[in-house]
Amino acid sequence: MTKKILIVGGVAGGASAAARLRRIDETAQIIMFERDQFISFANCGLPYHIGGEIEDRNALLVQTPESMHARFNIDIRIQSEVVDIDAQAKQVSVHRLDTGERYQESYDELILSPGAKPIMPPIPGIDLASVFSLRNIPDMDRIIHKLDIDAPRSAVVIGGGFIGIEMAEALVHRKVETTLIELSNQVMPPIDAEMAVPLHQEMRRNGTQLILGDALEAITESSDNELTLTLRSGRELKTDMLIMAIGVTPENQLAKTAGLALGQRGGIQVDKQMRTSVEHIWAVGDAIEVAHFVTGSHAQIPLAGPANRQGRIVADNIFGMASEYKDTLGTGICKVFNLAAASTGANEKQLLAEQKPFQKVYLHAADHAGYYPDARQIHLKLLFQPTDGRILGAQAVGEKGVDKRIDVLATAIRAGLTVFDLEEFELCYAPPFGSAKDIINQAGFVASNALRGSHDICQADALPQGDDVQVLDVRSASEISAHGSIEGAINIPLDQLRQNLQRLPKDKTWVTLCAVGLRGYVAQRMLVQHGYSVLNMTGGYTSYLMAQQVGR
Amino acid sequence: MTKKILIVGGVAGGASAAARLRRIDETAQIIMFERDQFISFANCGLPYHIGGEIEDRNALLVQTPESMHARFNIDIRIQSEVVDIDAQAKQVSVHRLDTGERYQESYDELILSPGAKPIMPPIPGIDLASVFSLRNIPDMDRIIHKLDIDAPRSAVVIGGGFIGIEMAEALVHRKVETTLIELSNQVMPPIDAEMAVPLHQEMRRNGTQLILGDALEAITESSDNELTLTLRSGRELKTDMLIMAIGVTPENQLAKTAGLALGQRGGIQVDKQMRTSVEHIWAVGDAIEVAHFVTGSHAQIPLAGPANRQGRIVADNIFGMASEYKDTLGTGICKVFNLAAASTGANEKQLLAEQKPFQKVYLHAADHAGYYPDARQIHLKLLFQPTDGRILGAQAVGEKGVDKRIDVLATAIRAGLTVFDLEEFELCYAPPFGSAKDIINQAGFVASNALRGSHDICQADALPQGDDVQVLDVRSASEISAHGSIEGAINIPLDQLRQNLQRLPKDKTWVTLCAVGLRGYVAQRMLVQHGYSVLNMTGGYTSYLMAQQVGR
Repeated sequence: MTKKILIVGGVAGGASAAARLRRIDETAQIIMFERDQFISFANCGLPYHIGGEIEDRNALLVQTPESMHARFNIDIRIQSEVVDIDAQAKQVSVHRLDTGERYQESYDELILSPGAKPIMPPIPGIDLASVFSLRNIPDMDRIIHKLDIDAPRSAVVIGGGFIGIEMAEALVHRKVETTLIELSNQVMPPIDAEMAVPLHQEMRRNGTQLILGDALEAITESSDNELTLTLRSGRELKTDMLIMAIGVTPENQLAKTAGLALGQRGGIQVDKQMRTSVEHIWAVGDAIEVAHFVTGSHAQIPLAGPANRQGRIVADNIFGMASEYKDTLGTGICKVFNLAAASTGANEKQLLAEQKPFQKVYLHAADHAGYYPDARQIHLKLLFQPTDGRILGAQAVGEKGVDKRIDVLATAIRAGLTVFDLEEFELCYAPPFGSAKDIINQAGFVASNALRGSHDICQADALPQGDDVQVLDVRSASEISAHGSIEGAINIPLDQLRQNLQRLPKDKTWVTLCAVGLRGYVAQRMLVQHGYSVLNMTGGYTSYLMAQQVGR
Repeated sequence: MTKKILIVGGVAGGASAAARLRRIDETAQIIMFERDQFISFANCGLPYHIGGEIEDRNALLVQTPESMHARFNIDIRIQSEVVDIDAQAKQVSVHRLDTGERYQESYDELILSPGAKPIMPPIPGIDLASVFSLRNIPDMDRIIHKLDIDAPRSAVVIGGGFIGIEMAEALVHRKVETTLIELSNQVMPPIDAEMAVPLHQEMRRNGTQLILGDALEAITESSDNELTLTLRSGRELKTDMLIMAIGVTPENQLAKTAGLALGQRGGIQVDKQMRTSVEHIWAVGDAIEVAHFVTGSHAQIPLAGPANRQGRIVADNIFGMASEYKDTLGTGICKVFNLAAASTGANEKQLLAEQKPFQKVYLHAADHAGYYPDARQIHLKLLFQPTDGRILGAQAVGEKGVDKRIDVLATAIRAGLTVFDLEEFELCYAPPFGSAKDIINQAGFVASNALRGSHDICQADALPQGDDVQVLDVRSASEISAHGSIEGAINIPLDQLRQNLQRLPKDKTWVTLCAVGLRGYVAQRMLVQHGYSVLNMTGGYTSYLMAQQVGR
């Protein structure tokens, strides 16, 4: 029997579902409704066309209604908004935005892929013409038009997530004086605050002004079109344009109207086959809630990869091919000028919020052999279960090789591996590409030694306090004079430590410190064997500085 | 009780063992013997110092005897060759190469890490002064001296493995006219012949002359120091210098003398704890035989990563800490001018030789979103079990992102994952770093569809023959006129296929063909549903051309 399948929304999830449906069944009648004019566009490329890296706007239009119809025989109806669902009668009401016409369309199966929309808080002035958000091609066109025609000298971006950061960079590329305002103490929420410190520095180094811990409360416009922003702190800022990028919220209006069950975050509830609470209605993409692979809790993870995957899965299940969505790791990456920041699995904030026990280690090591040109430092944070070493999450920041390490660790998390497995990983090594002991192996060594009890660590954000605690900095004197140390630390370079042990009293708790934690570990091993009580600071002074600079 | 531990060989495996031993035990007496003057040097960096990328020779000296003694309290004896082992008496004979002196040294535990040496075939002229090999710092110094002093116009490299390729590139960087001669039909033996085709092209494009399928049989020197090389084919070549790089063989003389069991490849046999066949004697690094993680067969895999890992493991076991070496995947990578070629697990040659059943798919996709600047094509070959989809091996060649994909797949192999798991991988995606459907996900889709029976494939090197076979090329006419097609193929562009089905007889076996296999798959799905018998060529015309050009 020929199935009639309607799809609401023609971007990542919807378009993937449509193509997969057709590959499975040539005879199905497939109608895809899209409210906007564009389907299957490169959402993630929008900031880069604004910034000028992607020169050709057409490059963003992955499929047009015509090309997708020609290839997949999909009936594509743009500027057509599905405004109501009659689940009993199995039909939807469609509103043609171009003609105003309304009509009904029946279905055997209905797939919702309406996406998410930018959150626009109800503050005074939010509707002013110089206030923008960025979600689709028309949004992008409006921003570019503003930049091209009005040549604004200054812009303010509200929100330090993916879009906010990418927009700040795009505006800097367009030679606009840019300020980014973020309510929390860090940009890039998927990573933890101390890992965001290098991003703050990088943004400022590249001319973005960064205001953390403040929020927009009101916008007014003067006669010369200049905006005045009033912040929660009372501070006032003047700017020529404003980009709102504080996040997105699921497009759940249609689902609500149809009485579909929603999750606590407002996303459409689905099972692992993408079924909603109402028979013959399915949902995918940014509009749904998924389970987090690591924490198991419900999450809204609006990313293209999961949306595409869910599109395939819903098509399989509609045609009776068993296919399950296996939860979301939330792997993500953001370019921040010359840096990349990436993460996968759970971060420390999530683990604390969910009261899951964890241990963490920090590594700072070069992306490839240090003796080969252009090696760059990667900062890596690894979170794992203290009981069995199972990897819970990872975050990395650096100029090069960040995506590679997080992809490997995402694979390890997906496979249920532990920090002990990381010791064994055989990764590509030649001097231009890696190290014989890659930072991932090193993370495995450090974490495994910590769990085995041969490497007691302390954290840079929780230096033990008290008169009996003494920091021993084993870096060279020249390193310390160049970079500083922790107040009160005594300095004995590692290579002179063995012959100076008699100087160190045994009734202290010693904290060994070096640049990144490696020499500190060697010192710790030496001291412990001579009867000292020693913790090594994981990540060394580099992590200490990052912890000190949280929120700055 | 204080242990006395001797280590023979001071590079990767030996130096790693020494450092780990000391971290475990401050009291042990540790003596490390090294025949040469240098310990713990950056073996893998040697060609890059010759080529000039690594400017500072000192950068290659990771540790000096002095620095390693200061940090780890190791008694380091350079220019000291261990020439005999008395396992009964638990002592070795040491020959001081500087003074000629010989002495005995007793041990509780003995670790052999003698490494491997370049194979120098016994052909006439092999001992001439202008014939070089490259294994250590003195070898490198001799080659640089030759280049600096004699300014040779031409050089020949024998052997197309890692060192041969890297040396050819180094010589080209030094403006020397370079010819590489390889006995087999391909360079870079860890990958299969069709995957080496882009490497051959890249080497020639960068000025290396490449002679495949020929071997060196004799070398003569004329009075003006010019070498004449006689090849097996009868061809004669004149050159100013010759680099022998046909491979390495384990340094097993000492082990043989001591009566240690050797494997069929001449490497020292060890168990998973790195024990040799003789009590209290252990061995690590390039001199040992390991089990291959995928095939289970014995292998000689002379790489730095495994050597370092084995050094740690032997130290743990000597001090009673259970630690096992978990076999070798053989993950490796080589820079070939602007390309990288990498592999992990088993290749097709190995699987054929071991008569293991396998299936294979080819992908050719961009390293990141095509609409973002500087995307480059990656060629990926994935080998997996036809029964359950377990991943057996992977190879990739391309300008960028090759190391990342092979590292992810190495992790997947190590975790025992299948091609079905690859469909689920969540990898970092933002336009500068990847694609929403990464080439790894795509490989998962293609391979999984093939195993599920919804995507019957044929191989570019095994196009079905016969009158009833018809190739259907679904690329555009302009693509075909630009790049060619398979002789006898008929051309209907994919987007016009559905309305032209009546032109296609059903009594044929159809082979769908496109550029990389994606449109061919869509065409196949369409045709199959209309009752046709269809195979899609995996990797499309790109793989077809690579298969056609094997050995060229």
